[in-house]
Amino acid sequence: MIKRNKNYTNLAKGYLFPEIAKRRKAFQAQHPEAKIISLGIGNTTEPLAPHIVEEMKNFVEALGTKEGYEGYQDDSAGMPKLRERISKAIYNGEIKPSEIFVSDGAKCDLGRLQAMFGADVNVAVQDPSYPVYVDGTVMAGAGGKEPVTENGFKDITYMPCLPENGFFPDLSVVKKDSLIYICSPNNPTGAVATKENLFELVNFAKANGCVVLFDAAYSAFIRDENLPKSIYEIEGAKDCAIEMQSFSKPAGFTGVRLGWCVVPENLKFDDGSKIADAWARITNTAFNGASNIAQAGGFAALDETGLKEMQETISYYLENAALIRSALESENFKVMGVEVYSGGNAPYVWAKFPGKKSWDVFDQILSQCNVVVTPGAGFGPSGESFIRFSSFGHRENIQEACERLKLFKM
Amino acid sequence: MIKRNKNYTNLAKGYLFPEIAKRRKAFQAQHPEAKIISLGIGNTTEPLAPHIVEEMKNFVEALGTKEGYEGYQDDSAGMPKLRERISKAIYNGEIKPSEIFVSDGAKCDLGRLQAMFGADVNVAVQDPSYPVYVDGTVMAGAGGKEPVTENGFKDITYMPCLPENGFFPDLSVVKKDSLIYICSPNNPTGAVATKENLFELVNFAKANGCVVLFDAAYSAFIRDENLPKSIYEIEGAKDCAIEMQSFSKPAGFTGVRLGWCVVPENLKFDDGSKIADAWARITNTAFNGASNIAQAGGFAALDETGLKEMQETISYYLENAALIRSALESENFKVMGVEVYSGGNAPYVWAKFPGKKSWDVFDQILSQCNVVVTPGAGFGPSGESFIRFSSFGHRENIQEACERLKLFKM
Repeated sequence: MIKRNKNYTNLAKGYLFPEIAKRRKAFQAQHPEAKIISLGIGNTTEPLAPHIVEEMKNFVEALGTKEGYEGYQDDSAGMPKLRERISKAIYNGEIKPSEIFVSDGAKCDLGRLQAMFGADVNVAVQDPSYPVYVDGTVMAGAGGKEPVTENGFKDITYMPCLPENGFFPDLSVVKKDSLIYICSPNNPTGAVATKENLFELVNFAKANGCVVLFDAAYSAFIRDENLPKSIYEIEGAKDCAIEMQSFSKPAGFTGVRLGWCVVPENLKFDDGSKIADAWARITNTAFNGASNIAQAGGFAALDETGLKEMQETISYYLENAALIRSALESENFKVMGVEVYSGGNAPYVWAKFPGKKSWDVFDQILSQCNVVVTPGAGFGPSGESFIRFSSFGHRENIQEACERLKLFKM
Repeated sequence: MIKRNKNYTNLAKGYLFPEIAKRRKAFQAQHPEAKIISLGIGNTTEPLAPHIVEEMKNFVEALGTKEGYEGYQDDSAGMPKLRERISKAIYNGEIKPSEIFVSDGAKCDLGRLQAMFGADVNVAVQDPSYPVYVDGTVMAGAGGKEPVTENGFKDITYMPCLPENGFFPDLSVVKKDSLIYICSPNNPTGAVATKENLFELVNFAKANGCVVLFDAAYSAFIRDENLPKSIYEIEGAKDCAIEMQSFSKPAGFTGVRLGWCVVPENLKFDDGSKIADAWARITNTAFNGASNIAQAGGFAALDETGLKEMQETISYYLENAALIRSALESENFKVMGVEVYSGGNAPYVWAKFPGKKSWDVFDQILSQCNVVVTPGAGFGPSGESFIRFSSFGHRENIQEACERLKLFKM
């Protein structure tokens, strides 16, 4: 019989979000009357903006005509005009269109990127972090030969991100020649790396032969003009960093599927070959490009009207985040000693419940408030005792969830 | 510095189709007046059917409303109603919806499937075959430690498919516990495996602990009712076969991106765990589902109107294939001893140019006829001397290409 791939045997049992969905379902089955509200998975809820809808409809219409029909793209890295527009609208022309690879989203890119770097690379992740960094690493064989323990995987370097260090890691624990996953604005902590943080990161990476995988999927939420939205705002980043971006949250494309990553032409492997060339090969061989309809939508999202509409949607979610923060600062949480972290530049509010286990808090909030949250422990060992509250939701649901949370006791 | 993944170092230089595009571009640059016609890459050219266009437009419209908006799917394996409809429309209910995993296309599934099976599995491919089988295998580390030679990769078992064996391989060369890639209707040969062929395949796989990766992306082109459209028409296939299917060619979704694979619940690894469980894990972890708009289109394509429209598009391409076949049977090719293979159940015509090298024939046809074809050698060692002619094109272009081909001399 076919051998099971050992890299998969070691994976933690279930992926975090299906596990949450399972517990929610079980609770709902036991309490059919409960009106559950989700502040859990970061899933967008607001309709696509009218301008994007219009342009995608026009594109679909054109696909039904001989003149407007398009099949395979010449290059799986995306429509030339979209790569061009991303270069201008997001990077002010400082990243070339040829360095921009359009994709069906950051998660998919992460899987392919880690597969490209392979089993023999050193990996460092922020702890807590988006579970796909660790899972992708383990699936590619770079997590080590032993199963996961409560401290994580043996061959992965976990960099604790806690209130004590302002949620930005101490890089001195990172091995030479590592892939360093950094997410800013951070999922789950909501913390945004400062220019000084990223300057330190870029210099560390360059001095130690590392490549930074910079996940900027939430960059559109940054409203503080002093905070960097892209790692390429830092000098030298083009020599050491790959950046992932996404239309999922700002344009509501979680279901439509569209993102991109930047692989600068300066980036090289130890044999002197260009990382971008290897990436182009994998993109053409194991991927066939994002849906052309999604790309037409992304193109519309980045013109003047689209950018304005996106900012309105983001404001809506940021206002939700402010409401959640305010609820978590109410008296009942103060009594429990709960500490709330939320800087106003991310869709997540991160809260510490001292002395409690995340999954216990999750279960309690679900049963008392009928509100689904995300247990911090699901994001890594240092997430224990924390809860992530997502601000994606209709305003009336967020308000209702906040009212219920204000009555929570533990 | 970051080490280069050795599995990539070994890959053949360029992926086949970008190489063809490069030569075409170079020729066009030297001959700006040439009106090049492509019978090369299997890229659809006919507009989407009206019913599919209508339903996708409606879906996009709904995404712009509070009631109709959808974000992440609960399960990356696809919309429940689409999985349900595939089960009924394609498998007559004999494959369960839970065994059907909707994806962004067969190529992407192949990359993820090979990654799941990992570096230690034995692999057997038809020779010639779709280059992604070999490339995906090599990228996952299962191709061996040595670079490619003119005989292919050392750790891959090549199963010659030639006129002498009716293009169906001798399975006795396959090692125990192998993944066996079989494509029917075949790309590039156009040959369709008979029920007897597949019966032999299924029995061999079961007796030898093998898993068949059955690529049925072209199954909608089968018009001969005695030929199997799915491997699951063969008893026992649910114990040993994964099937890949695609909306790309029948519905013109090459750019829209939609397909599915079937992973039956009976399939197990050597440790007794279900392959479907590992596949669900990778699907949720390194993929976030096909674009919901594409899924709405696929749902429409499989209702009564959609199925009828698809058959019309397929008839159009099959008529193109008949025209190409007829051109290749003209006197000038007979003089060269060219042998033509085309059974009327596939969009490809496969022709042997005895004593010639494929790339030489490619260059000659390009320069004499200004027609792009695909050199058989690009599909594997046994493809040498063959040329693949694709029937995807507007009728007037196919007719024009045929007229030019009738004057070809070598």
